[in-house]
Amino acid sequence: MREHRETVLTGLRDDTAVLERISGDLTRKFTGIFAAETVERYVFESYTALARTSRIRTHLASTTARFAADRLKALAQSTGAIARDVPEVLFVCVHNAGRSQMAAALLNKYAQGAVHVRSAGSAPAAELEPAVVAALAEAGIDLSQEFPKPLTDDVVRAADVVITMGCGDSCPIYPGKHYRDWTIGDPAVKDLAGAREIRDEIDLLVTELLGELTTASKKH
Amino acid sequence: MREHRETVLTGLRDDTAVLERISGDLTRKFTGIFAAETVERYVFESYTALARTSRIRTHLASTTARFAADRLKALAQSTGAIARDVPEVLFVCVHNAGRSQMAAALLNKYAQGAVHVRSAGSAPAAELEPAVVAALAEAGIDLSQEFPKPLTDDVVRAADVVITMGCGDSCPIYPGKHYRDWTIGDPAVKDLAGAREIRDEIDLLVTELLGELTTASKKH
Repeated sequence: MREHRETVLTGLRDDTAVLERISGDLTRKFTGIFAAETVERYVFESYTALARTSRIRTHLASTTARFAADRLKALAQSTGAIARDVPEVLFVCVHNAGRSQMAAALLNKYAQGAVHVRSAGSAPAAELEPAVVAALAEAGIDLSQEFPKPLTDDVVRAADVVITMGCGDSCPIYPGKHYRDWTIGDPAVKDLAGAREIRDEIDLLVTELLGELTTASKKH
Repeated sequence: MREHRETVLTGLRDDTAVLERISGDLTRKFTGIFAAETVERYVFESYTALARTSRIRTHLASTTARFAADRLKALAQSTGAIARDVPEVLFVCVHNAGRSQMAAALLNKYAQGAVHVRSAGSAPAAELEPAVVAALAEAGIDLSQEFPKPLTDDVVRAADVVITMGCGDSCPIYPGKHYRDWTIGDPAVKDLAGAREIRDEIDLLVTELLGELTTASKKH
């Protein structure tokens, strides 16, 4: 009976060597800020977190490298080890496959460096919604290199403004940050017409936010 | 228009103080093994990871304390800083709400300390399946304190045997570990009859596994 139910897995893919190389690269990049132990933990835990939900394993090493690097940068920003020159905005939705990706991309485009933007999801999807990628391509934004990322503590810590969209109270709360919730209709981003509608709705909110942030920055 | 779509969130719950206390406790517990920085990262990231999927926020601090402590112990075991006296088994399913919880609880019961057991999920559910809790209560096992946990790198590293159940290739692969996949019918754990059936199926596999592990241990 057992042979029908149990398979001994062999010939499995071992990414340890490439992850160790990424850890080495990032340890050098963050010399004087983080210990090698911390960097290695970030790389391997980032890999496991992405592997749990990501559909495509072949890109996993490169998305891990980017995700871990950005998380380490966020952590360094939150401790003051790396300066925060511009306001940091974090968008959070459930899947990080539609709304939060659109908001981040649109704000990033309009801000032209005056704001730094991140996005994450409480339950990240396997990949971005194709209709969302198409709707932003129409607006001249390339999302082909983006991927859904789980919400982590470090990116919340680095944020000045956290904008949630339908992800309930899944986001950690820290004093001194501004938390807002955007109600963006129904997340009907499965077809292009729906994705366009939500894109335009988010576009208005993002434009308004950018106005606020840049006015506030000038006051200081 | 904006007032209908944007809410500035105020009066939100801030768990920083309790998480800092947990970090302090665990830093003392792991003195000489992990830096305070590492422990704090584990506590805060464990909190955020659980907050993303957990239904009940009121227990979050106590589940965070247990989850972070167990992850740190796993990491210390994997580096040899804490001895592994018995074989370490990790069960992984998708939601860590049914099959992997049953397997871990049953093996833990039968092993009586001869094996150490962990479980995790690739996409953890908000809570355990009530039918699973009921089916194991019938077998004299109390699952009321258990909670779904995301799969993390540290618990994989600490394992000698990793048993996956329907979670695809979401688990990191390391050399020197034994990977097996159990096919446990359909995860029909929504009702008590289904949960009992799967419990009994897992019971057989777990008993067999324990026999193997204890025979192998005696050989060494």
